[in-house]
Amino acid sequence: MSSTATVSSELPAKVDSEALRTLLDGRWASVRADVRAQLGQRRLHPDPDWTTEQHRAYITDLARELAASGHTALGFTSEHGGEDDIGGSVNSISMLAYADLSLMVKAGVQWGLFGGAVQALGTDAHHRKYLPAIMSFELPGCFAMTETGHGSNVAAAETTATYDVAAGEFVVHSPTPSARKDYIGNAARDGRLAVVFAQLITPAGGHGVHALLVPIRDADGRPCPGVTISDCGRKAGLNGVDNGRLVFDSVRVPREALLNKYGDVAPDGTYSSPIENESARFFTMLGTLVRGRISVAGSAASATQSALTIAVRYGQRRRQFEAPGRDGEIVLLDYLSHQRKLLPALAKSYALHFAQEELVRMLHEVQSGGTRDEAAQRELEGLAAGMKAVTTWHATHAIQACREACGGAGYLVENLLPQLKADTDVFTTFEGDNTVLLQLVAKGLLTEYRDHVGDLNTLGMIKFITEQVVDTIAERTAARGLAQRFKDPAPDDAEWHHELLADREEHLLAGLARRLRRAGEPDADAFAVFNAAQDHLLSAASAHVDRWVLDGFTAGLARCDDDGVTALLTRVRALYALSVVEADRGWFLEHGRLTAGQAKAVTATVNELCAELRPYADTLVDGFGIPDAWVDAVILR
Amino acid sequence: MSSTATVSSELPAKVDSEALRTLLDGRWASVRADVRAQLGQRRLHPDPDWTTEQHRAYITDLARELAASGHTALGFTSEHGGEDDIGGSVNSISMLAYADLSLMVKAGVQWGLFGGAVQALGTDAHHRKYLPAIMSFELPGCFAMTETGHGSNVAAAETTATYDVAAGEFVVHSPTPSARKDYIGNAARDGRLAVVFAQLITPAGGHGVHALLVPIRDADGRPCPGVTISDCGRKAGLNGVDNGRLVFDSVRVPREALLNKYGDVAPDGTYSSPIENESARFFTMLGTLVRGRISVAGSAASATQSALTIAVRYGQRRRQFEAPGRDGEIVLLDYLSHQRKLLPALAKSYALHFAQEELVRMLHEVQSGGTRDEAAQRELEGLAAGMKAVTTWHATHAIQACREACGGAGYLVENLLPQLKADTDVFTTFEGDNTVLLQLVAKGLLTEYRDHVGDLNTLGMIKFITEQVVDTIAERTAARGLAQRFKDPAPDDAEWHHELLADREEHLLAGLARRLRRAGEPDADAFAVFNAAQDHLLSAASAHVDRWVLDGFTAGLARCDDDGVTALLTRVRALYALSVVEADRGWFLEHGRLTAGQAKAVTATVNELCAELRPYADTLVDGFGIPDAWVDAVILR
Repeated sequence: MSSTATVSSELPAKVDSEALRTLLDGRWASVRADVRAQLGQRRLHPDPDWTTEQHRAYITDLARELAASGHTALGFTSEHGGEDDIGGSVNSISMLAYADLSLMVKAGVQWGLFGGAVQALGTDAHHRKYLPAIMSFELPGCFAMTETGHGSNVAAAETTATYDVAAGEFVVHSPTPSARKDYIGNAARDGRLAVVFAQLITPAGGHGVHALLVPIRDADGRPCPGVTISDCGRKAGLNGVDNGRLVFDSVRVPREALLNKYGDVAPDGTYSSPIENESARFFTMLGTLVRGRISVAGSAASATQSALTIAVRYGQRRRQFEAPGRDGEIVLLDYLSHQRKLLPALAKSYALHFAQEELVRMLHEVQSGGTRDEAAQRELEGLAAGMKAVTTWHATHAIQACREACGGAGYLVENLLPQLKADTDVFTTFEGDNTVLLQLVAKGLLTEYRDHVGDLNTLGMIKFITEQVVDTIAERTAARGLAQRFKDPAPDDAEWHHELLADREEHLLAGLARRLRRAGEPDADAFAVFNAAQDHLLSAASAHVDRWVLDGFTAGLARCDDDGVTALLTRVRALYALSVVEADRGWFLEHGRLTAGQAKAVTATVNELCAELRPYADTLVDGFGIPDAWVDAVILR
Repeated sequence: MSSTATVSSELPAKVDSEALRTLLDGRWASVRADVRAQLGQRRLHPDPDWTTEQHRAYITDLARELAASGHTALGFTSEHGGEDDIGGSVNSISMLAYADLSLMVKAGVQWGLFGGAVQALGTDAHHRKYLPAIMSFELPGCFAMTETGHGSNVAAAETTATYDVAAGEFVVHSPTPSARKDYIGNAARDGRLAVVFAQLITPAGGHGVHALLVPIRDADGRPCPGVTISDCGRKAGLNGVDNGRLVFDSVRVPREALLNKYGDVAPDGTYSSPIENESARFFTMLGTLVRGRISVAGSAASATQSALTIAVRYGQRRRQFEAPGRDGEIVLLDYLSHQRKLLPALAKSYALHFAQEELVRMLHEVQSGGTRDEAAQRELEGLAAGMKAVTTWHATHAIQACREACGGAGYLVENLLPQLKADTDVFTTFEGDNTVLLQLVAKGLLTEYRDHVGDLNTLGMIKFITEQVVDTIAERTAARGLAQRFKDPAPDDAEWHHELLADREEHLLAGLARRLRRAGEPDADAFAVFNAAQDHLLSAASAHVDRWVLDGFTAGLARCDDDGVTALLTRVRALYALSVVEADRGWFLEHGRLTAGQAKAVTATVNELCAELRPYADTLVDGFGIPDAWVDAVILR
């Protein structure tokens, strides 16, 4: 993707929201249409007075209904009854997130995490044996990775799977209380089989974390011998999903239970793997599971769009306070403060929607291809981590703003915002804690950077120091250059917006590389150096994602063939870009990227764009194409 | 209050958390000790699987228990069995907020809003007749102000109370669907009598909004004739409180039902009031109810402290990821990113705690005094509005950060954070929407400003324009002065911190006055001028509160006689002040108040203060003095 300057035409009085929806539906429009057709007439929201058990039963029934419709096979290989449509499967999950988030998570656990792990980490025998029953939901299962003692740090998992040569079996065991598998979806009530991540041990020693299939309940729903199942109980939200805990007391499973695509154990206990390096193998295995993170990002994006749809529609009906020279009371969305609460968030939702489509396309290409492209896989993993962090934090902040924008009405369950808020709240810390994920992003970028500036030999170092000096000079020049160009803050100067964000990204990364290099010096306290730069690291990662998201918007816009939609979205893109700049204008000022006057002009332009887009707010939320039944807040009736 | 420079001494290895608690308990320590003694041994949190009805019954029982203990009489006049301790009553409510927020709101509705309105707006006959039964909870009541169509804009309430001279009665009526009283606490289940705000109409015409006592249920709990009661249903939180809706169909109440302190109707229908101007009368009546807002601020502050206590304690137990050169995995709170999530929020909670004590002292003086001090009352109302907005937004953001800092565990109800988040979420929009409240603050400041710069006659205008020019010059000088002083960003230079915040406040306000003055020009579109400046207005109000909070911290610190506590809190104050500056460093840079290098130094100093305070994080949360049973999260066991 690269940005191109777009000169926006005049905004027409009316923009076609159907054309907008078609553009947003994108490549997987038919999948999105299918889910709308299947569930779009129904208000799926739970009764708030249900007990936890009633809510879980309701969601399990809905999941069965989904399975019966066949949509749940999208992401699986066609040779076992699937449809080979990985991008479609992510779109399908993201669509469910508009309808009900417990249903989305239940489906995500069964067909994404559990089924996805069997597909990605298992081999043909596993696929033949399990995939049909997984797709049909006859075999509900768990993805048992997280432990009480280790969430983000999966490599440190304590559960063991020790091969017993004589018996030809693995012994799966939880050696400590902190080895307990925790927060596991499908575990408390429905799950029968679990993909358990454990340290694989053979007579030759440990081989790192691998995944095995371990039965946890029999056909009658009773826990299997040696498996202790407990319930995580009530959560802030997502109470239709039965999260639980699993403890294994020397549970024996056959040798074939090992999902053996990336590591196998022969009957005699000999370990083998196509990837020799243990760390590389571990990250390769985790990397195949990237779809889960991408689905969470897509789902968080959907929930945010639902909340914005409700709040924007309410903001155009609700009036409060009279004003001199105006008839009646003022419509909430006519207040600048109200526009500021909702419209930049709406613009960011548009940006993330287009960026998400780019990400899903990448996923689809990488995972549909027969051969493995390491560079593409690494890029995908980094972007998936970054998009997950940025999109879920956007959900947290924007849904909160929507709740507040609806006042007391926003606090009532009948208006749907409380459920959206409570259900999405965990997204920032599950499927990888956002802070940890942004560090992964930054580390990935640093690796690329190191590849670029050379390794640490003397020549490389001299070259690096020289570059550093050049960089400092270049910074002043670049800053002046950027500053000079920005004479008139044209809201539609996409090229300049791209440059601002790209320049920030590069500068933050170069500075970070210099700081972290100190960790390699003799006598350096590597942790102290790293830790002191942690906020810098997180900023660099965010800046990278911000720029990538803007480019994603540009790429989406390039596919648009409706002039009115193009004119409108050009403004929306500018509002996104300038909101990002405004929020971090401290940085742009500190680094000479903007003068004080320019920074003030950015704020003024954001206000102008809010005013310009305000008449199109309804069109923009209509463009999301969310069926009315799913955003049927009582305040909108 | 005024700031003084404090030179901090060395931090001792251990600071006495009991001395810290004594300082924080402040003037109403005995009230706080009483609530701890009464409820501190009990875990009051609701069972998450209760139905709404079960939860409500539980809270009503707890409220009865409170009433039996007599604490609920604190804020009422002694001649009717109260204790004349207004400051004590606010402290008592804020203490309940640590224990359970539904209980706090139920108590706040009964004894603060309902009882408070009878006390403040009624006269002796009302007090004699009702206060004893209100204090004892024999007469549960409602504060029926908000309507479906009008929340923040109370003056536009549509409910009418029309005096019928022949019958000597008022007819209370809801003329439209939007006149329905909405979100009314105690209405759906328990309330028997309601203070109803309605447009008072006599044969001579309308007199604006007044309050009347209207029975809504009989002794058997049946709705009174003409009163239609409905239920708001489930909410995001606070489900122990029975919020409902009231519609009146020509309900007749005797003439004596009018709470007639500020406006009365004689038997012949003649209206009289000690305050002639209708608008002044309305704001005087509302002004007497300021205690509600102050109680919400105090309660939001308490809930935030509970959340921080849980997250900080967990952050010191939980380890994740190994680091080179370190034994075992790193404790979460040793990561800079984790310190950044929690410690500036902790510092702000300290600042708000001390500022809240100042506010309660002001309230106590203003409302305990026999004569009315208009200027003091106005200042109190402005600060109450500002503190309510800033403290409740702090609760929303900080509790969210605490939830995320505890990862998946923070999402489980057993760890208490979900309830704290859900219960406090409405605080930002009830007892006045925060955005509307900050506008009140700014308008109050502008009124003062206008008094200062003179009225709008020619002479005043010339003077104003001259000042404007002087101001511009002064700005450059001041900016240079501030910049020059900041050679070394001494973290303990309280005077400089105060100057930075005071200068920002004054500059924002002066600029705002200039912008809004245009609204008075001939042919100006007053609403457009006002609306274009709305973000400026909100910034000015926030800046005012930020500076006032810092000064409140300084005033609290001046009462400290423990050297270790003083040394510690000097750093905490600096962290608060510099976090505020850092968050708004775009403004300080744009206005030449900080150079780029200084702005970067502020960020570096915030990081250093986080590192310096990190070993004292436990002491700081212990200092809040929250009984263990109230923060008994399972992850801390």
